Amino acid sequence: MLLEQIAGNQEALAENHKIQINLVGAADSRRMMFNPRGLDPHTVKSILKLEPEESEPVNIQAFIEKIKTLNLPNAAFCDCTASDDVAAAYDAILRAAIPVITPNKRALSAPLQYYKTLKDLSRDQGVPFLYETTVCAALPVISTIRDLTLAGDKVRRIQAVLSGTLSFIFNNFDGTKPFSALVRDAKAQGYTEPDPRDDLNAKDAARKALILARECGMNLEFSSIVIEDILPKSCLDAPSVDAFFAELEKCDAAFEARRSAAAAAGKALRYIAIIEDGAAKLSLQEESAESPFLSLAGSENIVVITSDRYATMPLVIKGPGAGAEVTAGGVFSDIIRAAKTLV
Amino acid sequence: MLLEQIAGNQEALAENHKIQINLVGAADSRRMMFNPRGLDPHTVKSILKLEPEESEPVNIQAFIEKIKTLNLPNAAFCDCTASDDVAAAYDAILRAAIPVITPNKRALSAPLQYYKTLKDLSRDQGVPFLYETTVCAALPVISTIRDLTLAGDKVRRIQAVLSGTLSFIFNNFDGTKPFSALVRDAKAQGYTEPDPRDDLNAKDAARKALILARECGMNLEFSSIVIEDILPKSCLDAPSVDAFFAELEKCDAAFEARRSAAAAAGKALRYIAIIEDGAAKLSLQEESAESPFLSLAGSENIVVITSDRYATMPLVIKGPGAGAEVTAGGVFSDIIRAAKTLV
Repeated sequence: MLLEQIAGNQEALAENHKIQINLVGAADSRRMMFNPRGLDPHTVKSILKLEPEESEPVNIQAFIEKIKTLNLPNAAFCDCTASDDVAAAYDAILRAAIPVITPNKRALSAPLQYYKTLKDLSRDQGVPFLYETTVCAALPVISTIRDLTLAGDKVRRIQAVLSGTLSFIFNNFDGTKPFSALVRDAKAQGYTEPDPRDDLNAKDAARKALILARECGMNLEFSSIVIEDILPKSCLDAPSVDAFFAELEKCDAAFEARRSAAAAAGKALRYIAIIEDGAAKLSLQEESAESPFLSLAGSENIVVITSDRYATMPLVIKGPGAGAEVTAGGVFSDIIRAAKTLV
Repeated sequence: MLLEQIAGNQEALAENHKIQINLVGAADSRRMMFNPRGLDPHTVKSILKLEPEESEPVNIQAFIEKIKTLNLPNAAFCDCTASDDVAAAYDAILRAAIPVITPNKRALSAPLQYYKTLKDLSRDQGVPFLYETTVCAALPVISTIRDLTLAGDKVRRIQAVLSGTLSFIFNNFDGTKPFSALVRDAKAQGYTEPDPRDDLNAKDAARKALILARECGMNLEFSSIVIEDILPKSCLDAPSVDAFFAELEKCDAAFEARRSAAAAAGKALRYIAIIEDGAAKLSLQEESAESPFLSLAGSENIVVITSDRYATMPLVIKGPGAGAEVTAGGVFSDIIRAAKTLV
């Protein structure tokens, strides 16, 4: 998707904005290829897949060495994997003064020491390290926090719904359907991982909360994020997805009791990350009608930022926090941002 | 406020982010002064006011000549006035390859030809021209539209409440008070200009709509923006603020009739800018409960962006769209952004 967007806009960017994007290397999970004069972003994917004589076996160390050897001015590295191995190479890449752009959460939610190494390398060498799309896809969340912080504001609290899946499930949990049926709906509509527990365990949302907390200057580790389990142990331990759903159905009455108790008080359940006072916690909250979280629809994400300057009225950003097209667009924006800094 | 924010963060920016901000020239509406080694942002305002031997009479041409003569690397010009004269000098400043940063709407809502000249100068020379705070103060609206557009997305529709005053009045128009009383409240709480008609005529909101439309690539002039009058002619023609309020009270019944008709259909009135299909229009709309505009509180602004990529779920940005502190913070962010591009 990113390659298609680059292909479709390379000319307009060069002509209208004097920004020249040149794809000089590419890799998928098996092969990699290079051409300092430029690869065609239209065709590179299928060449990697179908024309082994044009490429070589992929190897992240060799990939980095190749970029360094090419020694092109204004090179940038873009990682669109979810790989730990690639994330582990960012320090070497930044050390070579090559910007890193990524939607991959691994490095950003890695142990604090590695995170700090990357941030320090980026800052000390003035090399862009851009990862807007690690949280809420292309919604301008990270850049906003960074702008506020750089300009001397202090973020005091972030409240956020960071999981599209959990947003969808709780936005639609209105008593018309049992909880387990909503999870089945979410799965059927492609909102969940193959095993919905990979969303319902809120680990991915917690990783995003960690990234936001760190962006605000908090020295947190993933292990210190407090995650309130949505599911009881019986569901988590179920040996298969079918067994999980069978267990979940047994919990429908308990979920409904919690929902209707909230509804009786004019409230609704939302699974919210709260980052405040140096800590981050994700939990099921009862929100009243005027809460910004009650305005969520579909699988929308929302981030509510309270700071010294946004003290009485918060800054709110809302919208789709996932999806190939918006995410690719956000990565592309970060590439352009890096290009502008380098020109 | 901006000077205080710079003063308070100069050290941290230099130490933690290697961004050196040096104030080398300053002017108020009467005097201007320079020091290539740096002016103290803490004291410069009072020196301009109280120590005429340190400064000279202000003159925008002389100010620009002085910056050019100093020929400092990475100079930037920041206009925090609302002056047409200063805005008219941006072309000369950009032509000298000096970035312009401003919350002043004048140049951005000037005749299209001047707007285009400035945008072309900025692009052709790679000189930042940054004006995030001309619309909704520091809310990340302009930068988001710019990011989307640069990365090949196409904004299809913007719906927005761009006036804090009109937001406050209509958010609180719930039948408990007559319309004229709400306008009096808004004035008493400092939400309006001395003459509230300067807000109620929606000209300022229309100027912001024009800036957004142009950012989306529409070649619009201010005269082509359609503004639905909120007030009848009798109110607009009233010779004084007191006379205006007397006239407005006569209209209370009509406003209430319109409100209660909407309320009977489960709707509420909001004054909304809609930018779509190459045109921009501001009008009083009846919004239903699920509308994002019904979630507005206080004097909040909101911008709802629908694009090719944000097609089914829009991107929503909401929060305070005015205020000295957030606006200064946004201008400061733009200064830092320019600095990063220049380094």
